[in-house]
Amino acid sequence: MAAEPPPTPVRFGIIGCANIARKVSRAILLSPNSTIVAIGSRSIEKAAAFAKDNGFPASAKAYGSYDAVLDDPEVDAVYVPLPTSLHLHWAVLAARKRKHVLLEKPVALNVGELDEILAACESSGLQYMDATMWMHHPRTAEMKAFLSDPQRFGQLKAVHSIFSYNSGPEFLKNDIRLKPDLDALGALGDAGWYCIRAILWANDYQLPKTVTALKDAEFNEAGVILSCGASLLFHDGILATFYCSFLSNLTMEVSVLGANGYLRVHDFIIPFQENVGPFYVHANTKFAQLSIGIEPEPTEHLVTTDLPQEALMVKEFSSLVGKIKENGLGTETKWPTISRKTQLVVDAVKTSIDKGFEPIEVAY
Amino acid sequence: MAAEPPPTPVRFGIIGCANIARKVSRAILLSPNSTIVAIGSRSIEKAAAFAKDNGFPASAKAYGSYDAVLDDPEVDAVYVPLPTSLHLHWAVLAARKRKHVLLEKPVALNVGELDEILAACESSGLQYMDATMWMHHPRTAEMKAFLSDPQRFGQLKAVHSIFSYNSGPEFLKNDIRLKPDLDALGALGDAGWYCIRAILWANDYQLPKTVTALKDAEFNEAGVILSCGASLLFHDGILATFYCSFLSNLTMEVSVLGANGYLRVHDFIIPFQENVGPFYVHANTKFAQLSIGIEPEPTEHLVTTDLPQEALMVKEFSSLVGKIKENGLGTETKWPTISRKTQLVVDAVKTSIDKGFEPIEVAY
Repeated sequence: MAAEPPPTPVRFGIIGCANIARKVSRAILLSPNSTIVAIGSRSIEKAAAFAKDNGFPASAKAYGSYDAVLDDPEVDAVYVPLPTSLHLHWAVLAARKRKHVLLEKPVALNVGELDEILAACESSGLQYMDATMWMHHPRTAEMKAFLSDPQRFGQLKAVHSIFSYNSGPEFLKNDIRLKPDLDALGALGDAGWYCIRAILWANDYQLPKTVTALKDAEFNEAGVILSCGASLLFHDGILATFYCSFLSNLTMEVSVLGANGYLRVHDFIIPFQENVGPFYVHANTKFAQLSIGIEPEPTEHLVTTDLPQEALMVKEFSSLVGKIKENGLGTETKWPTISRKTQLVVDAVKTSIDKGFEPIEVAY
Repeated sequence: MAAEPPPTPVRFGIIGCANIARKVSRAILLSPNSTIVAIGSRSIEKAAAFAKDNGFPASAKAYGSYDAVLDDPEVDAVYVPLPTSLHLHWAVLAARKRKHVLLEKPVALNVGELDEILAACESSGLQYMDATMWMHHPRTAEMKAFLSDPQRFGQLKAVHSIFSYNSGPEFLKNDIRLKPDLDALGALGDAGWYCIRAILWANDYQLPKTVTALKDAEFNEAGVILSCGASLLFHDGILATFYCSFLSNLTMEVSVLGANGYLRVHDFIIPFQENVGPFYVHANTKFAQLSIGIEPEPTEHLVTTDLPQEALMVKEFSSLVGKIKENGLGTETKWPTISRKTQLVVDAVKTSIDKGFEPIEVAY
């Protein structure tokens, strides 16, 4: 019996030379079912230099515009690492040009914009996915299996997440994530996005009933959020809190508390090591005799991976694109659905801050 | 030169045979500067059995009342493990009988009660200390040294703490901590106390400006708190959150986030091991090249101790009592001060819950 032929690689175009595009370019080249055929920048020299510096195939084309990438018939899918305020225009245009869309997060300035992007993709049968890499690490599925274990974890009760990093004064002065016309959501969009996704993930993507930003958020002179926190109240009294910041040490935590167990992970967004992700489980923990110590002690679980999580993300996206392209299958709706829910909560936190830290109801 | 004579041991009386008194009795016997001379219970048989079961010296007296302990002239200090609602009466009476007071937490139903206890101790020059054991582990001082390091930790930004345990239906039905007439503060007093202390500790005992309980708390049929969370806003925008519960797996976390560093500890209340306490430090953490991993990785710090933290607590208390008794020194005011601040925040959380999760201002 002949082996199945390898899938035709999904051919990526990249629009923009953002720093994150270096990591994702590497991921596209590492993934077995994808390749890069084009990159566009406002400067063709910059695009060519980016292609060269990042080991693109010699056949990859460098363009002096984003439009040229979208007009290239060899491009199946685009990866969009542009500033958030440009996502609406370019992601919608990409969909109109019949390109599948892998969209960097935060995906939009608000859910209204995202809905336009999703509608453009959906109406043409194009796959949409946001570039939230940790979703694709095999550790994430293993952690979920623990959270789904009624004996060892039980009913979900509380979630807490932190994502912060402190890139110093130069970042705070010049990075696009600090410019209200480029990334108006600041730390909430760039860092809080992950915390919110983690909280939704732990809740099986059930939306919270209400979202309340915690006093006080910090802002730069232009009004962009530098740090904020929020509490999210779910049905059944499940309580989640998060804290995100551009002003604190790089920290990437999720802790999930259940009636019978507890899970914590300290590098959920970017694993400290590429090939292995640890997480820590406390299950059915009781005080030892005389309340000296506990039984049993927490355990460390190491989940290895052959490919880094960003390559697994590209692989999953490309697999879905391949099925649509070659087998005529429909799109996977999970990804746009959870992206939209994440954006809804981002919006609610922003609205709560804008309204003086009032509770905001969240409705799908 | 002759060696200094060993100090005369401080002679403890214990009023009540609560389970926690077993652990603290062991601590009193382990500490080199203390001993047990009396125990009182409402039943003399129970007191005698407790003394025998817990290895008290043969000379220790068993009394059929708490009063008898307080009237015993050989008793220098009393340890009070009674239900919270009885603290006001018995701690004040102990002070009137000129006994130093080691008081189990939660120390009082509200700060008004605590103020009566503190006034009774202070007016007679008696040492007061609450039995918050983790304060006395050498790890706590080492963690504080890290938090005080401007290069490796920097400005404090956020604190999160969890203390929960799930002792099952029997506990929820029968334990004194679930009875409104005995321990009306429920999980907030018994578990939240530690989280609040940790938050204050991280803030060098500065009080928060406002305290807001997070929707929704859970209660039993009698209205006792089974789980709750709160956010605490400090000056300089420092944000703290905590979650405490009788309905979730045993979990004892503090995480402290600064501009340049991060500290986490997973067994701060009761170390998993008696002779060593770990904590974890992330300092000046940056994304690695291409945002693949981080540099440097977090480090584990192990702090060993010859005596368990509860014995170090007794040792510190006894040392202070000894100095008063033998050298005529004054009391150490740190302990009543931080106990009162902790109670003030407990009260504010309770008030916030009672007022429908409104922000409550905290004033000393």
